[in-house]
Amino acid sequence: LAKDEQRTALPGVATGLAVTGAGGDVLYIEASLADPETGASGVTLTGQLGDVMKESAQIALSYLRSRGVELELPVGDLKDRGVHIHVPAGAVPKDGPSAGVTMTTALVSLLTGRPVRSDVAMTGEVSLTGRVLPIGGVKQKLLAAHQAGITTVLIPKRNEPDLDDVPETVREQLTVHAVSDVREVLALALEPARTREHAAAA
Amino acid sequence: LAKDEQRTALPGVATGLAVTGAGGDVLYIEASLADPETGASGVTLTGQLGDVMKESAQIALSYLRSRGVELELPVGDLKDRGVHIHVPAGAVPKDGPSAGVTMTTALVSLLTGRPVRSDVAMTGEVSLTGRVLPIGGVKQKLLAAHQAGITTVLIPKRNEPDLDDVPETVREQLTVHAVSDVREVLALALEPARTREHAAAA
Amino acid sequence: LAKDEQRTALPGVATGLAVTGAGGDVLYIEASLADPETGASGVTLTGQLGDVMKESAQIALSYLRSRGVELELPVGDLKDRGVHIHVPAGAVPKDGPSAGVTMTTALVSLLTGRPVRSDVAMTGEVSLTGRVLPIGGVKQKLLAAHQAGITTVLIPKRNEPDLDDVPETVREQLTVHAVSDVREVLALALEPARTREHAAAA
Amino acid sequence: LAKDEQRTALPGVATGLAVTGAGGDVLYIEASLADPETGASGVTLTGQLGDVMKESAQIALSYLRSRGVELELPVGDLKDRGVHIHVPAGAVPKDGPSAGVTMTTALVSLLTGRPVRSDVAMTGEVSLTGRVLPIGGVKQKLLAAHQAGITTVLIPKRNEPDLDDVPETVREQLTVHAVSDVREVLALALEPARTREHAAAA
Amino acid sequence: LAKDEQRTALPGVATGLAVTGAGGDVLYIEASLADPETGASGVTLTGQLGDVMKESAQIALSYLRSRGVELELPVGDLKDRGVHIHVPAGAVPKDGPSAGVTMTTALVSLLTGRPVRSDVAMTGEVSLTGRVLPIGGVKQKLLAAHQAGITTVLIPKRNEPDLDDVPETVREQLTVHAVSDVREVLALALEPARTREHAAAA
Amino acid sequence: LAKDEQRTALPGVATGLAVTGAGGDVLYIEASLADPETGASGVTLTGQLGDVMKESAQIALSYLRSRGVELELPVGDLKDRGVHIHVPAGAVPKDGPSAGVTMTTALVSLLTGRPVRSDVAMTGEVSLTGRVLPIGGVKQKLLAAHQAGITTVLIPKRNEPDLDDVPETVREQLTVHAVSDVREVLALALEPARTREHAAAA
Ligand SMILES: [Ca+2]
Ligand SMILES: [Ca+2]
Ligand SMILES: [Ca+2]
Ligand SMILES: [Ca+2]
Ligand SMILES: [Ca+2]
Ligand SMILES: [Ca+2]
Ligand SMILES: [Ca+2]
Ligand SMILES: [Ca+2]
Ligand SMILES: [Ca+2]
Ligand SMILES: [Ca+2]
Ligand SMILES: [Ca+2]
Ligand SMILES: [Ca+2]
Repeated sequence: LAKDEQRTALPGVATGLAVTGAGGDVLYIEASLADPETGASGVTLTGQLGDVMKESAQIALSYLRSRGVELELPVGDLKDRGVHIHVPAGAVPKDGPSAGVTMTTALVSLLTGRPVRSDVAMTGEVSLTGRVLPIGGVKQKLLAAHQAGITTVLIPKRNEPDLDDVPETVREQLTVHAVSDVREVLALALEPARTREHAAAA
Repeated sequence: LAKDEQRTALPGVATGLAVTGAGGDVLYIEASLADPETGASGVTLTGQLGDVMKESAQIALSYLRSRGVELELPVGDLKDRGVHIHVPAGAVPKDGPSAGVTMTTALVSLLTGRPVRSDVAMTGEVSLTGRVLPIGGVKQKLLAAHQAGITTVLIPKRNEPDLDDVPETVREQLTVHAVSDVREVLALALEPARTREHAAAA
Repeated sequence: LAKDEQRTALPGVATGLAVTGAGGDVLYIEASLADPETGASGVTLTGQLGDVMKESAQIALSYLRSRGVELELPVGDLKDRGVHIHVPAGAVPKDGPSAGVTMTTALVSLLTGRPVRSDVAMTGEVSLTGRVLPIGGVKQKLLAAHQAGITTVLIPKRNEPDLDDVPETVREQLTVHAVSDVREVLALALEPARTREHAAAA
Repeated sequence: LAKDEQRTALPGVATGLAVTGAGGDVLYIEASLADPETGASGVTLTGQLGDVMKESAQIALSYLRSRGVELELPVGDLKDRGVHIHVPAGAVPKDGPSAGVTMTTALVSLLTGRPVRSDVAMTGEVSLTGRVLPIGGVKQKLLAAHQAGITTVLIPKRNEPDLDDVPETVREQLTVHAVSDVREVLALALEPARTREHAAAA
Repeated sequence: LAKDEQRTALPGVATGLAVTGAGGDVLYIEASLADPETGASGVTLTGQLGDVMKESAQIALSYLRSRGVELELPVGDLKDRGVHIHVPAGAVPKDGPSAGVTMTTALVSLLTGRPVRSDVAMTGEVSLTGRVLPIGGVKQKLLAAHQAGITTVLIPKRNEPDLDDVPETVREQLTVHAVSDVREVLALALEPARTREHAAAA
Repeated sequence: LAKDEQRTALPGVATGLAVTGAGGDVLYIEASLADPETGASGVTLTGQLGDVMKESAQIALSYLRSRGVELELPVGDLKDRGVHIHVPAGAVPKDGPSAGVTMTTALVSLLTGRPVRSDVAMTGEVSLTGRVLPIGGVKQKLLAAHQAGITTVLIPKRNEPDLDDVPETVREQLTVHAVSDVREVLALALEPARTREHAAAA
């Protein structure tokens, strides 16, 4: 798990799951906030994202912009600092709505400074109200997560029936949470906030 | 009705009706307003909306911008807070003018804080003056509404003759209102405003 | 005439005439001005308008922006309030320059608060200097106007010869004005300004 | 000449010459400046202009913006007031660089308030330094000018050899000036400035 | 040489060399700066320039924006005054990177007020650091320069071997400078600065 | 090495490696910052860069904007001065993510004033968190670097296995560093900062 742990070591990176031509794959959503002194503003999306995936990023941002107080986020950062969301590898075209939960998690991780758990991967469309909607490719995605050493996977509630298709041996080694609201995703995927005291003691 | 009720529980979500390749379907229009501190402005439209449906959103907004005082809306919010309208599912292309009444209702719900009745679905083009213009697929839409547990449907006045095509058994279980002005839609679809006193007592 | 009268009852709506695949048709040009508090600005054009028809709207606006004082219009409204011009039905593509007089009339009606006469329909290209230039389809347009209960039609002076093609029975029931300047259109189509005293007395 | 005279009666309209599928034709370039109170800014180009013709308008404007003092123009108007250039008829696509002199003349007429002489038509590309460059279709353009009752035509110096192709009878009835700098065009085409005294006396 | 001399008489015009379908040709790059009172800003590029040639203009401008102090240029003009670069003839599509030196020279001429020598033509790509990179068509370009009465030609250092292809009779009548930095081009092509005293004495 | 040394003599230029139709090639990434007085802002990308390569530049900039303090960069320059990244030759289309490390290095060189070592070339995709991701064409790129007189090459850690394909004779003459974080690239490729004292003494 060393490699994956490294990817999500810093706040702002979350592990997603995609269907590719060759089965499933793990992908990382990276988010950054510019230093206010650089004058950067607005939203930048890179990684050869298709229309639907770009809309997922807009939905994740609007969800945070309208529910930020409820989620106890420093929403002023979204005004003063340019946001960039990138999905490596840079040359591989990507599309689809299923990275919605991953994008939302990466952004909340970035804003709160709480890293994402390195053993957790996730998939699910997010609506503007934070509902987690069903996606495709559950079987391929769980096989890919297992292969990559992931131990906990978050899927949409309405995809629970698809778990029947996942081989028993794989299912037994994965903790799968079926969720219907993106706040459940955040509660399960983010490391606890390090308190200032804790950080000082470290 | 549990599922649908959940979708419109919060202000800003209204239930529409669409014609799809496979008959009719219920769709949800979600609207959000950004926290002014996030610096968001302008209008964002997502859900793979076609040209005509994007124009419907612009018409709904201009209607509220020009008639806001008459409708007793806090129209200053449209200046200070970014508006986002989204129509799940995110990967399904959608088009046509018939979501005009639903978009207008979702926006008014959001601005007034009055939720939309969870048992009401609606279809109809809206003109810039608020007139409700006829649309297609009344039969399929009413069947889909009935199937989804909806009990009240709002259609354009000029579509009344199309009700003859709806099977008797379905028609009997639906309350259908034929409307010619979007203000009738708002009166029928929005929950009463909760007074501050009422809210405090709850 | 009840239906059409309703369409132009409020200032900002004018009745135009178009040629369609199935002969001629009446169309309504709707214009709105946003409440300054909504922060809306600029010009929005909807109704699936083609390039030429969008340019007609720009010409109508520039005509009012450069001749506004002469026409005694509150031109400051064009700065402080977003303008929206819409042509229902929203899903039907429309194009051509012949709605120029109708767009200009709808905008002047909106700015002055003077409604457009419900018994008047019009067709004609407008140049940037306010000249009314000839258009096509006079015969089909007059038949459509007559069919819709219109009693007065405004056409370009240079289209007068086309009146020979209109059936005698229809021509006799229509009052046709052939005009060469858009100011003639405004004088013929707009209801007299209601004076403040008159309004108070009503 | 009554009709053409009417077109250029007000400052801001100049008579150009074009080659069409059916020989040559006279066209009018119309320019307007918005009332500063309308908040209009920038440049609007209409008349279904092609790329090359749009660039001609940009060149004419930059010429005036860089040489305005030399030409004694109130160049501040170009900052405070939106400029619109339109070429009727609105539905006819137009392209090519030969309207450069006509666009420059229409703009200078507008800025100075000096009308363009109604008996003058012109054709010629303009460079950014004000040079008049050669164009095509001299024969067809002069025939069209003659047909339209024009008595004076301005052409580029380097097109003088093309005059040989124009029928003797037409050439004899036209005064042709061959020019190499757009300032010559302005001197020949604009009516003398009406002095305030003259105007008062009239 | 009368004609060409006229083209570069004013600061802001430089003579370039292009390869066309019919061999080589001389072209003029014209640059202008708007009067600050006109409110013009930004960069306008005309002459039906292709993508590569537009990028050459951006490179020339960025070179001056980053090296302006070193070149003793009044770089504040680039902020306060709109820049326009045009390449006649307006209807002829042009592309390629070889006008880089010519664009840089025209801009420096404009900013310094030093005219470009009328007997000098040039060709060469410019990099962002001011290096002159090799181009194609040296033979055709030198033949065209000679034909046009040019006596001095500037080419990239790395194109020196191509001089072997130029006919002896032409080479003998041309002074060719092979350069590797655009500052050499400026030193060779620009007329000496006229001092204020000199100008007063003239 | 004279030629290459010249290219990277000034801060802001870094040597990259590309795969072309004819094997591998050395390319230079040039970056410039505009003088604040020129009013330039934003980011300009030239050199006929494809979508993926443009995204690489955006990633490099966002990396510096979010990690600037950690890297001790004067990030305020990114606000006040327009950034331009160019990749000669200007007419050759380029694409792919492998210039990420080179772009980041050129930008850091520019901001810090530390030149890039002229004997170092590099290749590697960079993620938004600064990770160096694997690229293609290692064999062709190392052959090209060797051919161009480069003695040190930086490649992604995950491309180490590809070194087996490089001929023994070439490998022996190259120092190859396999890196996983772009900070390693910066440490290896940038010349030491010249202290103010050192510069004064020189
Ligand atoms: Ca798509
Ligand atoms: Ca996906
Ligand atoms: Ca469409
Ligand atoms: Ca629909
Ligand atoms: Ca069109
Ligand atoms: Ca029409
Ligand atoms: Ca074109
Ligand atoms: Ca022409
Ligand atoms: Ca191209
Ligand atoms: Ca060239
Ligand atoms: Ca691409
Ligand atoms: Ca590459």
